[in-house]
Amino acid sequence: MSDQAFSDAERAAVYRAIAERRDMRHFSGGSVEPALLARLLEAAHHAPSVGLMQPWRFIRVTDRQLRARIRAHVELERIQTAEALGERSDHFMKLKVEGIEQCAEVLVAALMDDREKHIFGRRTLPEMDMASLSCAIQNLWLAARAEGLGMGWVSMFEPQALAEVLGMPVGAKPLAILCLGPVAEFYPQPMLVMEGWAQARPLSELVYENTWGVHP
Amino acid sequence: MSDQAFSDAERAAVYRAIAERRDMRHFSGGSVEPALLARLLEAAHHAPSVGLMQPWRFIRVTDRQLRARIRAHVELERIQTAEALGERSDHFMKLKVEGIEQCAEVLVAALMDDREKHIFGRRTLPEMDMASLSCAIQNLWLAARAEGLGMGWVSMFEPQALAEVLGMPVGAKPLAILCLGPVAEFYPQPMLVMEGWAQARPLSELVYENTWGVHP
Repeated sequence: MSDQAFSDAERAAVYRAIAERRDMRHFSGGSVEPALLARLLEAAHHAPSVGLMQPWRFIRVTDRQLRARIRAHVELERIQTAEALGERSDHFMKLKVEGIEQCAEVLVAALMDDREKHIFGRRTLPEMDMASLSCAIQNLWLAARAEGLGMGWVSMFEPQALAEVLGMPVGAKPLAILCLGPVAEFYPQPMLVMEGWAQARPLSELVYENTWGVHP
Repeated sequence: MSDQAFSDAERAAVYRAIAERRDMRHFSGGSVEPALLARLLEAAHHAPSVGLMQPWRFIRVTDRQLRARIRAHVELERIQTAEALGERSDHFMKLKVEGIEQCAEVLVAALMDDREKHIFGRRTLPEMDMASLSCAIQNLWLAARAEGLGMGWVSMFEPQALAEVLGMPVGAKPLAILCLGPVAEFYPQPMLVMEGWAQARPLSELVYENTWGVHP
């Protein structure tokens, strides 16, 4: 164990946030204090980014009509997804896939425009900007859990349509509609497991040694 | 503040991990105990994933010759990147961009094969699998920091070449070479800031309200 290790209590808190974070769809209204929202966004902003490009942009949606329009776009994609799912379509339509109307805050997380000039760490993997944005969202998620707030990541939307709704320039791209706010309770397990949609696989199946498919 | 909020000390620990995590390139050898490595991988495995697809696979590299080969692929891409950077090439070549030889453990994080059938939350944003993997890596990173271990994410490699080296099936894709292990000290700031490569932008420039470019 290194000298820089946290205390046992601190370590346990970090693991607790990681284990108890949930992708929430059920919210109980309320509000998020401005100072608290600022702390959460600062946590996101502490994320690593490839070549320090900091590709993340956050649009806070405070206009209720805009929020309703965003929700309608999600609803449109929900129906498209159901059709694409074929035989699982009925089950899918019963799932709650977003909490846009009920959550305290809606944030849209997006990639900035003008990303082509950032080559550092992206020459062969241009999608690293999206990886950086995702790390920022995970930071926000964990900080929110520690603050007792739920968050849900909604990715059911047509990115170009949402970009237009929010006045994004060419090259910018929304990756997440984040629903944030107080919740009555956190799901004890991932909601899709509780709803019988999917089963979680044990970690041991997903770890290899030296060669793909070879378990240690 | 919700009933589910962590204690003040727990919250502070989560924010500490987020603020003190660094993308490390300098390692001091040593080793990572198997139980500790297992805890870190479990933390990664607690990440959210779109439709619960759990697209992450981790290959632990224990063969020293394989590690050397991986490093050679990174070196190849480092030179290609320098050429692509043009006038910043000399400065770039002085930066330390990986710690593959010195770190205790090398893990390659990859996307699984056979991803096309996962439509939930990915119909219009197929790259959500990469977002899920990135969240898993961020979990691992934060847990490592709490344990006093450094981690670095190396994305300078040709993914197809690395996939072949590790025997990956068609459709699988490596996204990260993760260097993990004890460090003499954590950088007080991001290394690219300390080296004068890039300046960090303040969060306030990156937050909008309702419309792109409109600051609150």
